[in-house]
Amino acid sequence: MMELTGQSFLGSRRGTRSGAGFQAQNPQTSEALTPLYYSATPAEVDEAIELASWAFASYSQTSGKARAAFLRRAADGFDAHKQELAERAHLETALPMPRLLGEVGRTAGQLRMFAGVVEEGSWVQSRIDPAMPDRQPLPRPDIRSMLRPLGVVAVFGASNFPLAFSVAGGDTASALAAGCPVVVKAHPAHPGTSELAGHILAEAVGAEGLHPGVFSLLFDAGVEAGSALVRHPLVRAVAFTGSLRAGRALMDLAAARPDPIPCFTEMSSGNPVFVLPGALRKGPAALAATLFGSFTLGAGQFCTKPGIVLVPEAPEGQAFFDELKALVEKSAPFTLLTSGIAREYGRATKERAAEIPAAAQAAAEAGPACMAGAKLFTVCLEEFLAKPALADEIFGPNTLLVHCDSTQDFARAAAALDGHLTATLLGDDDDLAANRELIQVLEQKAGRLIFNGMPTGVEVTHAMVHGGPYPATSDPRFTSVGSLAIYRFARPVCYQGFPQAMLPPELQDGNPLGIIRLRDGKLEQQA
Amino acid sequence: MMELTGQSFLGSRRGTRSGAGFQAQNPQTSEALTPLYYSATPAEVDEAIELASWAFASYSQTSGKARAAFLRRAADGFDAHKQELAERAHLETALPMPRLLGEVGRTAGQLRMFAGVVEEGSWVQSRIDPAMPDRQPLPRPDIRSMLRPLGVVAVFGASNFPLAFSVAGGDTASALAAGCPVVVKAHPAHPGTSELAGHILAEAVGAEGLHPGVFSLLFDAGVEAGSALVRHPLVRAVAFTGSLRAGRALMDLAAARPDPIPCFTEMSSGNPVFVLPGALRKGPAALAATLFGSFTLGAGQFCTKPGIVLVPEAPEGQAFFDELKALVEKSAPFTLLTSGIAREYGRATKERAAEIPAAAQAAAEAGPACMAGAKLFTVCLEEFLAKPALADEIFGPNTLLVHCDSTQDFARAAAALDGHLTATLLGDDDDLAANRELIQVLEQKAGRLIFNGMPTGVEVTHAMVHGGPYPATSDPRFTSVGSLAIYRFARPVCYQGFPQAMLPPELQDGNPLGIIRLRDGKLEQQA
Repeated sequence: MMELTGQSFLGSRRGTRSGAGFQAQNPQTSEALTPLYYSATPAEVDEAIELASWAFASYSQTSGKARAAFLRRAADGFDAHKQELAERAHLETALPMPRLLGEVGRTAGQLRMFAGVVEEGSWVQSRIDPAMPDRQPLPRPDIRSMLRPLGVVAVFGASNFPLAFSVAGGDTASALAAGCPVVVKAHPAHPGTSELAGHILAEAVGAEGLHPGVFSLLFDAGVEAGSALVRHPLVRAVAFTGSLRAGRALMDLAAARPDPIPCFTEMSSGNPVFVLPGALRKGPAALAATLFGSFTLGAGQFCTKPGIVLVPEAPEGQAFFDELKALVEKSAPFTLLTSGIAREYGRATKERAAEIPAAAQAAAEAGPACMAGAKLFTVCLEEFLAKPALADEIFGPNTLLVHCDSTQDFARAAAALDGHLTATLLGDDDDLAANRELIQVLEQKAGRLIFNGMPTGVEVTHAMVHGGPYPATSDPRFTSVGSLAIYRFARPVCYQGFPQAMLPPELQDGNPLGIIRLRDGKLEQQA
Repeated sequence: MMELTGQSFLGSRRGTRSGAGFQAQNPQTSEALTPLYYSATPAEVDEAIELASWAFASYSQTSGKARAAFLRRAADGFDAHKQELAERAHLETALPMPRLLGEVGRTAGQLRMFAGVVEEGSWVQSRIDPAMPDRQPLPRPDIRSMLRPLGVVAVFGASNFPLAFSVAGGDTASALAAGCPVVVKAHPAHPGTSELAGHILAEAVGAEGLHPGVFSLLFDAGVEAGSALVRHPLVRAVAFTGSLRAGRALMDLAAARPDPIPCFTEMSSGNPVFVLPGALRKGPAALAATLFGSFTLGAGQFCTKPGIVLVPEAPEGQAFFDELKALVEKSAPFTLLTSGIAREYGRATKERAAEIPAAAQAAAEAGPACMAGAKLFTVCLEEFLAKPALADEIFGPNTLLVHCDSTQDFARAAAALDGHLTATLLGDDDDLAANRELIQVLEQKAGRLIFNGMPTGVEVTHAMVHGGPYPATSDPRFTSVGSLAIYRFARPVCYQGFPQAMLPPELQDGNPLGIIRLRDGKLEQQA
């Protein structure tokens, strides 16, 4: 058992117990959980960042193999403490144990995926344009480039995945893999889980003999530590998953710096689902059950929760609504992550309910503490298009059915959408072929297009894109899940006219690391 | 001969002659050049953007081959009108004819380089993670991703490369290559050159049968059209090369949008040069001549002009200064691009001169109109570190020597630097090997490290990086020169569970385009 002390991690040192205290709350009981957590003082925030900046000098020079060993040691730590992590997370989040045990596994898996990527090494996009000493009118010098780490990265833990998107989640794993030291701001809703994850990472840093500044973890009851992180001159990039309001505030802080820095925030997504005729024909009951399972998964607190469902009017369309209504009305309360989320869920669903006739909605009873009832709303397309607020994400177990006259209206509905993480099409192959134009519009609106699946399943693979145009994220060119996530934290650096001995191995003649490289823009022949 | 009419290009249509008029000025004579140019009206700005947005639907679906044919046709147009383009550019910029003829060639070369990149096709980073139907506890769906174009791109022409960084320059070429329609805001200092380039691009759009909205060109005497472009909801990305003040203003506009968009601005760089002992030993006279040639190239108006030169105190250090002083003092006046640039050069060099003892500077006489004299300033390292304004770029033929006690001080000087496009080391191989720490610091400060070359040579190749941390650019993860520049304008899109027939060819089984792809993170074996 790892001890919980409530203190921040400043590299290998622990923070003081002088900052404002706060405690996690059990969302099922509203009980405060021990221990008391201490907000990092401004001096401690600075210390963590300065340590990280010192660490960069050596950590940025480590080999992919060394970083892989470090990430794998951390992954082993998660495996070794699986039960302990899941139990604490369960107390702090009320998420079910099987889900949390799975999430520990995913966290370890993400660390190992990035270990594999940097051990193999080709991710650095090595490019070599050899010298042309005889070129007229001037010789061409030798020019080589590869990706190098950005510098210190500030990571903000998310509330809804207390492990996989938190202290040692995908943001931290990808930044560390890229060669960037990380300073994490823990999410205050699960400080105990965060401290356990911090222990595992700090131990891995020590065991691998890395500079202790490679990883720090700051607790804070408020927003001061986070703001200080984003403003600090030595911080070179930011990664965040959370609400639109908080994410936009960080984007604005990063953009207002004397020297703006890359700030990837993953924020808000309605994850529209387009129900094509073939899907309804297969039976509205099964479809309703699948959709209900998806929008209530994790108590409806997934970034990829299907919050907007477009259905064509048809006999099956009504049956689909009736099935979904029945599922919602008989559902047991869902425990939300925090009392703040529960309050906001109550407020936002009440506001939406007031705009919609009673016959066009369904609701389950809420419970005590953070327990909320599932909600279903329906509107017609014209109303949806006339009231943009209907497209706003409401975090929690609810969704909005949008009734369209026919699938002819889908392209118009799609064109009106903001950016989303996902867009889903349900139907048969003929439906898909008949909706090429719709797909082209959706491609502009989302980072991931799904055919006949639910968006809540997010695979951690090489081709995964968990991103999308604003407000889904701050920058549609990046993803926070999958191995492409590493590209948020690296920048190309070009070496011109350098002697072989002074080049990184990734750029040396003979390709000592055996990586994929481009020579004059063409794939280099393997030796 | 192409006719100059002074009207904007709104797709295949020409703008009205109703907006505020302005004329280019011959910097050598201060004469106004015909014709009169008409600022695009707000309605015309909107029309160009709306056309571009309409064009996106079809243009984003064109094959790499089709886009390559279009780009090559435009390149052929530049070749065919080489003399005409260079002559008009010479009138508008006073840059020498051989340089401008070369720049037309570079512009055509850039278009052809991007044609080659998109014709070959691997740039889209196709990734395939095949389904695992038997995976426990849940099957894995088929997941594939590739880069897709961002949408309408607003490009701002730069003053200092009236062809290669202007209407059909690297920004436009890379955005068009990526599949993005482009709306260019012409630089008001060379509207005639811009109109000629606009003709060539618009003709290529028509000849290839593309939607006319793929390319538009807006003239404007002021900043209204540019601001409107960056604010417009249908514009999805911005590219700019120019001053720090203007670039930061565009960054701030883009960041303040309801939906912030990617905004790549290339702005300001001192391009520090570190003179190591071996370089001085080879002879201060030759080194002084090379450096003088570099910082006065294009009248010192290159983004990569070496504006900060760090020299160790040594007998040769003094000789080096003396040689450089002599070259500066005997130099003929340089004609700057615009009277505004000449005024600002006068103001900024006067301000700097007032801070430095007369013995530590050298100056040549200015001339009439936009003719400015070269300037050399020297300070000691302590003064350089104490007065950050000394590191500010002064656009025009001047440089600042920073005298250090020894190369021991170089790492300290480097650590104090802001972001730059380049950092240069001059010396022998032993010098380089003795300064690994310095190189590591510089790697954090610049996009391109040069050994024994001058930074003003920028090759347009696959490994080139013309970027760097702020204020060199708005985002150090990108470059505006070289084939990597295309990545500013594309985003990954993931297709999950799609039938083969509905996938883009880049992602289909059998790899019909024969591109480099990653399957489960590994290079796919060629058939």
